[in-house]
Amino acid sequence: MSWNRRHLLDIASLDAGEITTILDTAREFKAVGQRPIKKTPALTGKTVVNFFVEPSTRTRISFELAAMRLSADVINFSVDASSFRKGETLKDTARNLEALNADIFIVRHQASGAPHFLAQFLKGSVVNAGDGAHSHPTQALLDVFTIREHKGDLKGLNVAIVGDILYSRVARSNIWALTKLGANVTLCGPSTLVPRVFEQMGCRVTYDINEAIESADVINLLRIQHERQRQTMFPSIGEYSKLFGLNQARFARTKPDALIMHPGPINRGVEIDSEIADCERSVVLEQVTNGLAVRMAVLFLVNGGAKSAQPVD
Amino acid sequence: MSWNRRHLLDIASLDAGEITTILDTAREFKAVGQRPIKKTPALTGKTVVNFFVEPSTRTRISFELAAMRLSADVINFSVDASSFRKGETLKDTARNLEALNADIFIVRHQASGAPHFLAQFLKGSVVNAGDGAHSHPTQALLDVFTIREHKGDLKGLNVAIVGDILYSRVARSNIWALTKLGANVTLCGPSTLVPRVFEQMGCRVTYDINEAIESADVINLLRIQHERQRQTMFPSIGEYSKLFGLNQARFARTKPDALIMHPGPINRGVEIDSEIADCERSVVLEQVTNGLAVRMAVLFLVNGGAKSAQPVD
Amino acid sequence: MSWNRRHLLDIASLDAGEITTILDTAREFKAVGQRPIKKTPALTGKTVVNFFVEPSTRTRISFELAAMRLSADVINFSVDASSFRKGETLKDTARNLEALNADIFIVRHQASGAPHFLAQFLKGSVVNAGDGAHSHPTQALLDVFTIREHKGDLKGLNVAIVGDILYSRVARSNIWALTKLGANVTLCGPSTLVPRVFEQMGCRVTYDINEAIESADVINLLRIQHERQRQTMFPSIGEYSKLFGLNQARFARTKPDALIMHPGPINRGVEIDSEIADCERSVVLEQVTNGLAVRMAVLFLVNGGAKSAQPVD
Repeated sequence: MSWNRRHLLDIASLDAGEITTILDTAREFKAVGQRPIKKTPALTGKTVVNFFVEPSTRTRISFELAAMRLSADVINFSVDASSFRKGETLKDTARNLEALNADIFIVRHQASGAPHFLAQFLKGSVVNAGDGAHSHPTQALLDVFTIREHKGDLKGLNVAIVGDILYSRVARSNIWALTKLGANVTLCGPSTLVPRVFEQMGCRVTYDINEAIESADVINLLRIQHERQRQTMFPSIGEYSKLFGLNQARFARTKPDALIMHPGPINRGVEIDSEIADCERSVVLEQVTNGLAVRMAVLFLVNGGAKSAQPVD
Repeated sequence: MSWNRRHLLDIASLDAGEITTILDTAREFKAVGQRPIKKTPALTGKTVVNFFVEPSTRTRISFELAAMRLSADVINFSVDASSFRKGETLKDTARNLEALNADIFIVRHQASGAPHFLAQFLKGSVVNAGDGAHSHPTQALLDVFTIREHKGDLKGLNVAIVGDILYSRVARSNIWALTKLGANVTLCGPSTLVPRVFEQMGCRVTYDINEAIESADVINLLRIQHERQRQTMFPSIGEYSKLFGLNQARFARTKPDALIMHPGPINRGVEIDSEIADCERSVVLEQVTNGLAVRMAVLFLVNGGAKSAQPVD
Repeated sequence: MSWNRRHLLDIASLDAGEITTILDTAREFKAVGQRPIKKTPALTGKTVVNFFVEPSTRTRISFELAAMRLSADVINFSVDASSFRKGETLKDTARNLEALNADIFIVRHQASGAPHFLAQFLKGSVVNAGDGAHSHPTQALLDVFTIREHKGDLKGLNVAIVGDILYSRVARSNIWALTKLGANVTLCGPSTLVPRVFEQMGCRVTYDINEAIESADVINLLRIQHERQRQTMFPSIGEYSKLFGLNQARFARTKPDALIMHPGPINRGVEIDSEIADCERSVVLEQVTNGLAVRMAVLFLVNGGAKSAQPVD
């Protein structure tokens, strides 16, 4: 058991022991979600603020329910950055929320570094729920948790991450978590979105999808964000699907026990064939379930839980 | 006591005994709302998702509070259908919510059949909170509950439903519930909105408002949805009010103990004269109170409550 | 202990003893916010409705958390007045919410008098969370609470309120609370926004900022609402800041122990120099903390708490 942090800001600053502590704690909390009474009093009387400056329904709900199941009081404070209150800074807004004796701030912001900035002066805990293209630590933790449940030790596992790596905080955080736990990471996607510089993070880079997936024990397909202006980076959705989508022909070349992962929401027929998304090797919905357990673990740990309370009563 | 269903999708598939079980259970829960401590631990540790693809403040709040008073954790997931996340289907969204170990989904959707569709694959319970023009079972249940409180047995009672029958899920669900419990149902409204085909559901159809209400023990006035494009179906709001509104002259012809009902929100001076809406025989606000009790009963029953817990401690 | 009211509508109708009761009760609740378990069962099983017809994130969150820490169930009902449901009146909406057996309505409305109107017929309690330019009683109570914590008895204290007095419900409520507790109130701002008629409320009016602040024990700087059309009342924000902003030169003339207050959110560099806002004598964030305590006290008292329960267990 090794955990002494007040915040969870990124994966880069954690060591393998800390990551393992989170995963071990999450395993206990996952059991809570399977009981008839899915609730534990670990954070009774604590105030958790969902401070979302970039909108997100799924991640917010996952954190909200995680806090509820720990018996905390949860306040949702969602604000569009463009309409951020004139005349008030991010810092002032956060300090005002803290003045309500908030214990934990779950922060999502479109600017990289916003959670780190807030952690410098807030007395409460800060949990990064996604900041710009920088980091999304709980997504990476739920991904490695899911892999560990199916594959055991990550050491030596081959993990392929396919898609828009350049702009993806999910990819960045996964690379940190996977390499720290000893996995071999291969990145694949359009060359405009997978620059060679990622080799410096210890990854292999390839633009050949077949090469990327054939030896993979785990294939993590990132979402193509076609609602944003990423289209300039590759010809078209159809072309992306043709070149990098996991279709039946490619699926036939994968290892028979290769896990299929996706952070969701999936674009059926784009990153992944619809039938493959629902096949036995797909763990997309387990990732969602595990996300809740991982977030319960993180909220519990940053609140100093390991010292002061039993995770599960 | 007869209840073995995991879902509440419509009234059509219930038998009279099941409807009576819900009403009897709701009577117990109504008492909870009258206690100083309006809370019972029946659903402690259960997760209820308000999954509203069509917006509705009133029905959502009634279900939200019903779940809270049963001590459940409630997550609100409201999304405008038009802005439904591109690339993700209704099924995928629902399965993602289920992956959070949700126990009950309260579903409102502008498409008829959406709750039935979800019930086919979700492991949790589905409660229909209104689907298109098809069904709104809890509204019908709260209506018959209210009638029963005032009139006792519904067998042989004359119930007039006035207004836009054709497009109304409230009307359809009421017709099912009332006829199953033995009431005689008369439908009245503009001929464009009350086609004769409803006679096949066992109702009497008339276009003469006086004839409809004179012998009625209960008069249920539906809301004219003048914010939608229904106006093409009748000349004008003023004309509707003149021809079918419950004004003082018509009220004078009703039986002295006829109940006046309306699912709300009322358009004063359109479907109903303002003073009549507030008179002693109007049970409009009781309907709201009873809606909460009926929804507590439904959530309790679909969760298997009758087998596993006392409804009220 | 003197409290027999079911509502909190304004400060004008309270006497000094009632104000003191609220402040004394708030002191006990402030301690709850400093405990590890920031929760007390005083309002268990009660239903509190946040009925906000004028949007407000901060005040809503403060009340929401206050209700949660008292263990009440909280329903948020926010609606834009302009899009207020066609065909339904404010009265009908409120009575429908009440029919859910709601105990306390926290009402914000852009129309002065709306909470008083609702209090006439609702059986539950009404707490005014700000109505038009009329009253914002909990803001005034948290302000006098904060002053009392630092200065003890308010009798004879000199309090300067600077800014847009004419349109400010904060100013009006503060004037009532301060004069009832025996403080001397000086108002200062552009002459268009500080008419002499306020002298009839027992205040001194001056247009000389230095004169206003030099003898003040407390300086309360109101927010310039530059997002509304108030600009017609004074030349420009820059001009306002130059003439009435609390800059370093003016700060140097204040009494060495004068408190600096602001209801927030502050416009740094407009009403107040950024460094002064963060200095030791600034109690802006304490005001936020105290607001939560005061709101817990108000919810507790209007619910009849003093008679039926211990405020803090």
